[in-house]
Amino acid sequence: MKRMMIFNCKQLAEKELKKIPKDKPLSLGIIQIGKDDVSDIFINEKKKAAQKADFSFNHYKFPETIPLDELERQIKSFPDDGLIIQLPIPDNFPTQEVLNMIPFEKDVDCLSETSLGKLYTDELDILPPVVGAVDKIIKNKKIELKGKVLAVVGPGRLVGKPTLLYGLSKKATVFSIDENTENKKELIKRADLVVTGVGRPGLITPEMIKKGALVIDAGTSKKNGKIVGDVREEVAEKATLTPVPGGVGPLTVVSLLDNLVKRSS
Amino acid sequence: MKRMMIFNCKQLAEKELKKIPKDKPLSLGIIQIGKDDVSDIFINEKKKAAQKADFSFNHYKFPETIPLDELERQIKSFPDDGLIIQLPIPDNFPTQEVLNMIPFEKDVDCLSETSLGKLYTDELDILPPVVGAVDKIIKNKKIELKGKVLAVVGPGRLVGKPTLLYGLSKKATVFSIDENTENKKELIKRADLVVTGVGRPGLITPEMIKKGALVIDAGTSKKNGKIVGDVREEVAEKATLTPVPGGVGPLTVVSLLDNLVKRSS
Repeated sequence: MKRMMIFNCKQLAEKELKKIPKDKPLSLGIIQIGKDDVSDIFINEKKKAAQKADFSFNHYKFPETIPLDELERQIKSFPDDGLIIQLPIPDNFPTQEVLNMIPFEKDVDCLSETSLGKLYTDELDILPPVVGAVDKIIKNKKIELKGKVLAVVGPGRLVGKPTLLYGLSKKATVFSIDENTENKKELIKRADLVVTGVGRPGLITPEMIKKGALVIDAGTSKKNGKIVGDVREEVAEKATLTPVPGGVGPLTVVSLLDNLVKRSS
Repeated sequence: MKRMMIFNCKQLAEKELKKIPKDKPLSLGIIQIGKDDVSDIFINEKKKAAQKADFSFNHYKFPETIPLDELERQIKSFPDDGLIIQLPIPDNFPTQEVLNMIPFEKDVDCLSETSLGKLYTDELDILPPVVGAVDKIIKNKKIELKGKVLAVVGPGRLVGKPTLLYGLSKKATVFSIDENTENKKELIKRADLVVTGVGRPGLITPEMIKKGALVIDAGTSKKNGKIVGDVREEVAEKATLTPVPGGVGPLTVVSLLDNLVKRSS
């Protein structure tokens, strides 16, 4: 049996969760519009983590018939220190416009235009939660990104793009790879760090990965009723791999709480 | 003598300038803080282009002793349809904070946080002027970026980063290359489009470039008293090259005027 190098994200998440100061009573609010089974799971994860950190947690549910101005009025009235819009929201809502309703100082998810503008200019005081998770893993593995190759597979708004900007800020050489890329395998194989957020099971196979690389799987999709990532498990025979589920997810939640503390201090 | 493939940016700029509608009296204002010889040249280029398009042009000069709040009060009072902060501004000013003083609807340079947030989310209605120049060149050459390799050399705020996001929006495979990148030559040689904005004369040599590629030189530095780009002229023997000066510069100015028109319509 081969040794599998699965990075223990849960253990790191527990450790990081314990580091969160509890001297201030803080409150996290999550806004949900409409119904979504997967969202319920994610919201519950955030709730559990918030409770472990002794924070208050409010779950605000709205029907998909709520008018936009009423939604905004309500969001502005919530007293929580941090507010999150749980994505996805129903198609009849303009996603970015709704994300922009979160006041900057409460935007612990870093998805409003103001936060993203500051992310672009390197002037954001917190990290987007997924990037915070990537950062925790990299720091734990004592990796210095400067001059290293970071391959971002799937340049989406939630995972790929912020990770790409993070790589630039760390002076990494960044490759952005999507479904149209020629020679995908050979390019990904040059990477010291691979971050994938596509949502296609089995997309990343062992022959695409350099021995000893770090592979962070931030893709999620459902296969046979189970949540799975983008990366085949056998990759862990030659590289360090974060699992799905129980990988980037729990660390992302801790990063969210980090952001709540940083913004309130 | 070898045939040199120098892309005629000036001719394209003249053609594009003629396309700008003149049915509305528009006004462009440029704000200059302190003194800078190179800035004077660039401001003059913008003034000449604005006048060719029959737009009004205001040049607002401030001493480097102006208090920040007074600067903001003045900027908010200017009646122009588009406003630009001429960069660089003196070191004692917080550059981004000053750029954020430009109201979004007048921010034809796309450098305020609000504009950059929208650029990130692909919801900006105009292109950052340098990207507008790149876009005009690509369209003129009838290049479809999807699946092509774009190498961005120098991931800076004014050229590299916006070009990188533009490449992503066009579904290109993007490489971000900086001074720490290993195998620079081999990576750049894979690119169908190279955009460089480093400011180091002679950085890009012919052996780094694929035959038939398009090389857009957006680097500017001074060498022996002359403005020069990043790319050696011999590159034009095997690839299409935009010259410096008289390359991206004039097209960037036209893109600025495009933005002024789009925002005012």
